[in-house]
Amino acid sequence: MFEKVIEPRMSETDRAGHINNTVIPVWFESGRDEIFKLFTPDLGADAWKMVIINFHVHFVHQLFYGKPVIVKTWIKEIGNTSLKVYEEIHQESTLCAKGEAVYVNFDLNEQKTERIPDDIRKILSLHMVGNK
Amino acid sequence: MFEKVIEPRMSETDRAGHINNTVIPVWFESGRDEIFKLFTPDLGADAWKMVIINFHVHFVHQLFYGKPVIVKTWIKEIGNTSLKVYEEIHQESTLCAKGEAVYVNFDLNEQKTERIPDDIRKILSLHMVGNK
Amino acid sequence: MFEKVIEPRMSETDRAGHINNTVIPVWFESGRDEIFKLFTPDLGADAWKMVIINFHVHFVHQLFYGKPVIVKTWIKEIGNTSLKVYEEIHQESTLCAKGEAVYVNFDLNEQKTERIPDDIRKILSLHMVGNK
Amino acid sequence: MFEKVIEPRMSETDRAGHINNTVIPVWFESGRDEIFKLFTPDLGADAWKMVIINFHVHFVHQLFYGKPVIVKTWIKEIGNTSLKVYEEIHQESTLCAKGEAVYVNFDLNEQKTERIPDDIRKILSLHMVGNK
Repeated sequence: MFEKVIEPRMSETDRAGHINNTVIPVWFESGRDEIFKLFTPDLGADAWKMVIINFHVHFVHQLFYGKPVIVKTWIKEIGNTSLKVYEEIHQESTLCAKGEAVYVNFDLNEQKTERIPDDIRKILSLHMVGNK
Repeated sequence: MFEKVIEPRMSETDRAGHINNTVIPVWFESGRDEIFKLFTPDLGADAWKMVIINFHVHFVHQLFYGKPVIVKTWIKEIGNTSLKVYEEIHQESTLCAKGEAVYVNFDLNEQKTERIPDDIRKILSLHMVGNK
Repeated sequence: MFEKVIEPRMSETDRAGHINNTVIPVWFESGRDEIFKLFTPDLGADAWKMVIINFHVHFVHQLFYGKPVIVKTWIKEIGNTSLKVYEEIHQESTLCAKGEAVYVNFDLNEQKTERIPDDIRKILSLHMVGNK
Repeated sequence: MFEKVIEPRMSETDRAGHINNTVIPVWFESGRDEIFKLFTPDLGADAWKMVIINFHVHFVHQLFYGKPVIVKTWIKEIGNTSLKVYEEIHQESTLCAKGEAVYVNFDLNEQKTERIPDDIRKILSLHMVGNK
């Protein structure tokens, strides 16, 4: 499992008083940084590889400004060219949101999908959902 | 159907060159403004009612900065206290993203769900998916 | 003067009840789209030119979700390689925020500044502050 | 000095390849969390006090996705009801952005400014610019 601690921001709340729902995909994407780095080792400069196909989010409990959250990310499926992640956000030991996202390994210059390389598969397989 | 035109922003692109995927839920939420207004007539001041339960997004085609997008929102189901919307984003006549979201009519002060009032049902029913 | 109408978003409010202050630079940047287009004609694909040097924002009046805002942008100074804009945000005929930003015409590939071309100067000069 | 480490996000980059300029005020605001907490002890629930009057940002060096940044915040001036902060963002030991912001201690319910209490002044004075 990959884990990232995030401090919610005042700008991420909304006038209903909690973290706005559109912030959750931003935190989930941030939780995938270590996965992105496998495909794009220099995140700031190398050609980008991972293209998102879909994602869904289930809201379980309100999230608040002022307490850190933990984003947890597992690998759920590794296909030939694609990858599914399962992810959760916890605040004060409460599960507040969960979701899944599917990516494809895509060469933006060549505009075609590529098989996920074996060395990356090996690392990803250490983070499978079963290993919770 | 509810329809909203949005001009993508430079700040909504990412270093892969297109609109970042986390922006799509923001545009979809903005497309629901007219629905929110039914439950919270003064969007800037009245007590907020609609609480999101889940949403999913499917990415069909890359979205670009520099051309307006149209967000289209239909009502898919009206339950006793809940509401499901179906939504699409188009750019230059191409369907680029589609999704669904489920809301519940929730009184945040009383912390309990409320039946969707009949007058709101009547208006929502004019925007059902079948009426595409 | 360049003018853009923006509909504030629920996700742009914060738990104090108004539009969060960090949204204002986003709206101001969006108001500069027509200027960016002069330097980068295909905003979605051409090499990006304008690099921001500084900006400041003064908050004059609270901004609310639920009513459109107008972003107004004037050219304040045209230097050899740089450009200063003056900008305002109005909601319901009230001036709510004003600011300035300085950009330089910069070739990111060559990593050097470039003189602002004469044809662009001509267009920019039609939008000078004096022409309010 | 208050200090906060932030991991830049893919969604915070733009198509020019770096962190978008509108993200910097978001990081600076996040760097002020400890100051907000002095005025609003329960950041998630208590009545909000601090209202921003103005801010400016100077961009010194490009910021990149993939490396953590440090936000440093000093108190520059303490007035009767107002407060000025000076702030910097560093990435890999390079100063990348600096700025100032002015807040006023404002009761949103009563709609009036309030003197900054003595116990808060005492704490703030430990973080003055001179103490770099």
